[in-house]
Amino acid sequence: MKKIVISTGGGDAPGLNAVIYAVVKAAHSRDWEVYGSRSGYKGLLDTDELIRLTPDIVADITPTGGTILGSTNKGNPFAMPVENLAGDIQIRDVSDRVMKNFTRMGFFCHIAIGGDGSLEIAHRFATEKGMPVIGVPKTIDNDLKATLLTFGFDTAVSTATEALDKLHSTAKSHDRVMVVEVMGRDSGWIALNSGISGGADIILIPEIPFDVNIICQKISENELYGKHYAIVVVAEGASAINTERICKDKSEIGRQDVLLGGIGEWVAKQIKECAGKDTRSLVLGHLQRGGSPTTFDRLLALRFGAAAVRMAENKSFDKMIALDGSEMKAVNLADAIKGRKKVPLDSDKILTARDIGICFGDAVE
Amino acid sequence: MKKIVISTGGGDAPGLNAVIYAVVKAAHSRDWEVYGSRSGYKGLLDTDELIRLTPDIVADITPTGGTILGSTNKGNPFAMPVENLAGDIQIRDVSDRVMKNFTRMGFFCHIAIGGDGSLEIAHRFATEKGMPVIGVPKTIDNDLKATLLTFGFDTAVSTATEALDKLHSTAKSHDRVMVVEVMGRDSGWIALNSGISGGADIILIPEIPFDVNIICQKISENELYGKHYAIVVVAEGASAINTERICKDKSEIGRQDVLLGGIGEWVAKQIKECAGKDTRSLVLGHLQRGGSPTTFDRLLALRFGAAAVRMAENKSFDKMIALDGSEMKAVNLADAIKGRKKVPLDSDKILTARDIGICFGDAVE
Amino acid sequence: MKKIVISTGGGDAPGLNAVIYAVVKAAHSRDWEVYGSRSGYKGLLDTDELIRLTPDIVADITPTGGTILGSTNKGNPFAMPVENLAGDIQIRDVSDRVMKNFTRMGFFCHIAIGGDGSLEIAHRFATEKGMPVIGVPKTIDNDLKATLLTFGFDTAVSTATEALDKLHSTAKSHDRVMVVEVMGRDSGWIALNSGISGGADIILIPEIPFDVNIICQKISENELYGKHYAIVVVAEGASAINTERICKDKSEIGRQDVLLGGIGEWVAKQIKECAGKDTRSLVLGHLQRGGSPTTFDRLLALRFGAAAVRMAENKSFDKMIALDGSEMKAVNLADAIKGRKKVPLDSDKILTARDIGICFGDAVE
Amino acid sequence: MKKIVISTGGGDAPGLNAVIYAVVKAAHSRDWEVYGSRSGYKGLLDTDELIRLTPDIVADITPTGGTILGSTNKGNPFAMPVENLAGDIQIRDVSDRVMKNFTRMGFFCHIAIGGDGSLEIAHRFATEKGMPVIGVPKTIDNDLKATLLTFGFDTAVSTATEALDKLHSTAKSHDRVMVVEVMGRDSGWIALNSGISGGADIILIPEIPFDVNIICQKISENELYGKHYAIVVVAEGASAINTERICKDKSEIGRQDVLLGGIGEWVAKQIKECAGKDTRSLVLGHLQRGGSPTTFDRLLALRFGAAAVRMAENKSFDKMIALDGSEMKAVNLADAIKGRKKVPLDSDKILTARDIGICFGDAVE
Repeated sequence: MKKIVISTGGGDAPGLNAVIYAVVKAAHSRDWEVYGSRSGYKGLLDTDELIRLTPDIVADITPTGGTILGSTNKGNPFAMPVENLAGDIQIRDVSDRVMKNFTRMGFFCHIAIGGDGSLEIAHRFATEKGMPVIGVPKTIDNDLKATLLTFGFDTAVSTATEALDKLHSTAKSHDRVMVVEVMGRDSGWIALNSGISGGADIILIPEIPFDVNIICQKISENELYGKHYAIVVVAEGASAINTERICKDKSEIGRQDVLLGGIGEWVAKQIKECAGKDTRSLVLGHLQRGGSPTTFDRLLALRFGAAAVRMAENKSFDKMIALDGSEMKAVNLADAIKGRKKVPLDSDKILTARDIGICFGDAVE
Repeated sequence: MKKIVISTGGGDAPGLNAVIYAVVKAAHSRDWEVYGSRSGYKGLLDTDELIRLTPDIVADITPTGGTILGSTNKGNPFAMPVENLAGDIQIRDVSDRVMKNFTRMGFFCHIAIGGDGSLEIAHRFATEKGMPVIGVPKTIDNDLKATLLTFGFDTAVSTATEALDKLHSTAKSHDRVMVVEVMGRDSGWIALNSGISGGADIILIPEIPFDVNIICQKISENELYGKHYAIVVVAEGASAINTERICKDKSEIGRQDVLLGGIGEWVAKQIKECAGKDTRSLVLGHLQRGGSPTTFDRLLALRFGAAAVRMAENKSFDKMIALDGSEMKAVNLADAIKGRKKVPLDSDKILTARDIGICFGDAVE
Repeated sequence: MKKIVISTGGGDAPGLNAVIYAVVKAAHSRDWEVYGSRSGYKGLLDTDELIRLTPDIVADITPTGGTILGSTNKGNPFAMPVENLAGDIQIRDVSDRVMKNFTRMGFFCHIAIGGDGSLEIAHRFATEKGMPVIGVPKTIDNDLKATLLTFGFDTAVSTATEALDKLHSTAKSHDRVMVVEVMGRDSGWIALNSGISGGADIILIPEIPFDVNIICQKISENELYGKHYAIVVVAEGASAINTERICKDKSEIGRQDVLLGGIGEWVAKQIKECAGKDTRSLVLGHLQRGGSPTTFDRLLALRFGAAAVRMAENKSFDKMIALDGSEMKAVNLADAIKGRKKVPLDSDKILTARDIGICFGDAVE
Repeated sequence: MKKIVISTGGGDAPGLNAVIYAVVKAAHSRDWEVYGSRSGYKGLLDTDELIRLTPDIVADITPTGGTILGSTNKGNPFAMPVENLAGDIQIRDVSDRVMKNFTRMGFFCHIAIGGDGSLEIAHRFATEKGMPVIGVPKTIDNDLKATLLTFGFDTAVSTATEALDKLHSTAKSHDRVMVVEVMGRDSGWIALNSGISGGADIILIPEIPFDVNIICQKISENELYGKHYAIVVVAEGASAINTERICKDKSEIGRQDVLLGGIGEWVAKQIKECAGKDTRSLVLGHLQRGGSPTTFDRLLALRFGAAAVRMAENKSFDKMIALDGSEMKAVNLADAIKGRKKVPLDSDKILTARDIGICFGDAVE
């Protein structure tokens, strides 16, 4: 009987368990067995950490958050921190041990669900060690060029939008500015989608460096139109272009300062000072990663999982499953891990946002 | 100042108000005025039924269900039922009156949000009367070939999936079969997406005529595996191929019978008889059309609305806005209204469903 | 080590698993063991159907619907339908067998979660067989006099209210009357609470026989005020007082007719005929029993479970746990099973409903 | 025609609009007129800030968050900050001006919705100026002795519980401790209810000063039982008893430090240091005040509003409406504003929490 091993790596994303469900069920319908490697590659380093995944075990996991394969961030086998009983930590290459266990257990395929870090490791196993690997992309930020969408993203955007909905009423009742910091270190997809859907006045994303003066000007303009509150969505990776006219001291905008309280808090402080409005900030943080996946993400994750098994059947290795329009396609891992997807400044979503009066903190003619 | 008129036609879909919001805001940012025609074309027949739509009026409508333009099914101006004071009804062509009012009020563009019926009327106004028309597609069933997705669909699928989630626990606690009838007269998209996401055992769609024997066989097989309950999702347009071995009387499967109680009730009755299980049916009906649009649908609807205004700016008339991959594009109304999108039997979603053990009631080798 | 056995009987209600969770954890903190009897009393008839419940097993069940103790409606040991291998069914008193197994397994207490039927059986075991029994009330209809509230009720009301919210927008967009049938065979609590919260125009409950003429009059009056749609909530046990002026044939209101299509469908038909409005009906049915309990119900169920264990500690047997104001109290099972709680016609909720313009279909001066 | 004026004061709470809805409808059914005073007492200081509230205007507000009467925190007429055109601010007693306008406009009753501050002002108007006042309690913290429950509380608890549900999966996937700070400056009701319902391991409330050592001990114990993550809920008003063994410097626990980052952040830091676990903190903040009220809160708020109008009808002034068991009752404002409701340490909820293994950070024998 054929045996597959499956692993999840990197930060969690709603839908991971749905991928696992589909892999187990699709393998079962082919009379294959599926084993889960707990804690990333740990199950392939120490085979006690492998668990047999049957349809019974996964029966109810599709709507659940997190991953049944336990904690995810347990390192790269090509440079693994290894601790001895004295507590000393050494960085070691244990990739051969992984490959040996893979072969010894008789696995014919490894389905690796993970972000760009995990997929790169998977690709190295494929090319350097000859492991038959299939990648399933996982990035809650939706910033992978090779696939139209990834699971978890719709859930994160929905959670952020629900938060914006809740903040509207309280902001309005108190004539307040509410600044909400959402995920997005390198790309502003979550901020952009939730900000448009949730009726934000201002959206700040890494792709468009913002000017605090323009933000405050927008807030004051709104006052003239009788709108005395504002909702500002800030991606955690957004940054200011200049703040001379506001800050007494340029060092205020230094990265170190931002890290202390977060960019959201910093923006709130600036708005308070320059627009003179009662301003509060909120960091959504881990709320965006948690919880039950939306219907949309469940479906996408199930499709990814089933398609990965079909790829295994076709021996389509060293590849990653991706969404292309409304269908699945396999792309080379080598290509997939390269391209990050930033928000194009001329994209239809940016145009929509500007059309409906949302300000990005940049100067527009 | 340029003036646009906007209308909504056909059954309602979550997201209509978001389209209106985006049109009003995008027009406002161009210094155009927007007027809404209440009850479909009624505002263009009787200009008392036109309302000025300002940013203030639409400020909070994006998350709301229904349409602020009032009831939608008020007929085709090319063949309009007209009632006199005596209560007599005549079918009349009042399209010239519509066109005259359109011109008289100084509108330079009509944005018509509607299903295939409404879009066909819009196309006739464009070609026969020279009205500058832009269509925005609205079909909760997502069955329009010209666009990857339509707004309202994700909300309907989410509502159906939430219902399935709720039914799982009660079905399991009582060892019951629950049959849920969802929308989809001609295509099975809602049944398919919600059935996969919501963990259905059996999905019945118009594209795959089903055999009751195979359904009952699946339910009995599940019993062998220790699963004593089942969830069956039926699209309202699904139909049986043969039922000789079960029904005493062939007339039972006649369309008339089905119409009385609905296909869901009929399927439940068959399962009860042939599988001998306690079986209940439920019709989701209008729950699927109502309520606040999901984040996904809000965003899509807002993009459609803003893009329609950009099309107006470019005088891109007699066309419909559509989603293509991740971007907007304009397609000819003439082409758009032709193509219905059925579930392709070899599509990835059907493969996924079969891979994870879902039965469509058809014989698979 | 002390051992408790726990059972769930009757229809399922959101919160059953939360009760089980609290019983297991509270027992564990006293170093007691807990065993679950599957399928009502089945585990006490056939000890193979007992399962050991540990904190690990129940770790994640609080937010889940249904009951982990499997199907619930498996009969009364004092009059149990017993099937032999030939398929013949006899009614037998197997209560002694239950009691013998209870003693043999060394249980010192039976916590019985159930409705009035199950609690009556529990009371008989206490008085006739000397079983140390503690009851936990479970009625989704909230119709037990002895306790201010029962778990599951808030979830059912919330589900019904959400449905009403969704129907508002579609009813409004189409100028329609929507009739929604909710649970409540003998009392109208779910209809009343959800109808008030969900903005119904008309609420029909078993406690107030309704007159279809008055309903239609209310709908027509609304038209005069410019409201062209209406939401009607009907408890499944509501009934009409007279329908002569509308129905051609009195037999139409007979119980048999109602059972075929449900009271909701019947009311919809009457409204269509007499008010001449496009009217649709919907039966919420099992949606109300399913799904994750609301926060309110989780808390109440957990409190019930923990309090039952404290009662066991105090040997407070033949009693039922109940909510009194904001605290728990123990009431005699003998008293608890007697009193049903109907909606008092002079209760504050009825007054509130009338005050805000809701019609009950009765003549008010 | 009789005229009522209604005002909302203090921080917003989900359900304010439902109270207003019920007041307007119940007044309308008695042929009374209702006027809303915007921004607390502003409408009674400057009658331009009064708005006529008709059934049409309030038709759809019940499910909405915030208050349609605009921003709420606009001061006490007995000591009002008054600004002149030069921007100078003086504290003035303008209560006579309020009373004069009240009389001049012909109001016969003032329904004041507010927290203890607003209710105290209302009571002073009643006793010192002879204003016929009826109070409606509003405290999201549910800390008023005179009423069993207040609206908004169930929504806040639900929002917090949903957040805990979301954090479980991500905490589990990463073996993390998540610290969540919720509202509750003086009483721990929100923390307690959400912590129990949401499966927290540790709940810290103002009523029980906590010891960081005991918290860390609990987290380590959980590790022994195989649970490598933890959820900690902290009320914003919780405080530590001693931290000598952990903190290098006692000043760390000073109030000033806590105010900078919040008690949640401080607790997270302590856990990180002493339990050596990856720990993150999150402040729910304004998310708890915002959004649509739950069904439970809508109903309670509607009942409060309608009952207030019935009190007006009975000239039951200088009183506050309150929930007593399942019915409404009027209590003297003088008494109502005195009693704060803390969590009793021997209450059933505390017992439940301890029974199911939740730690309060205190030493228990």
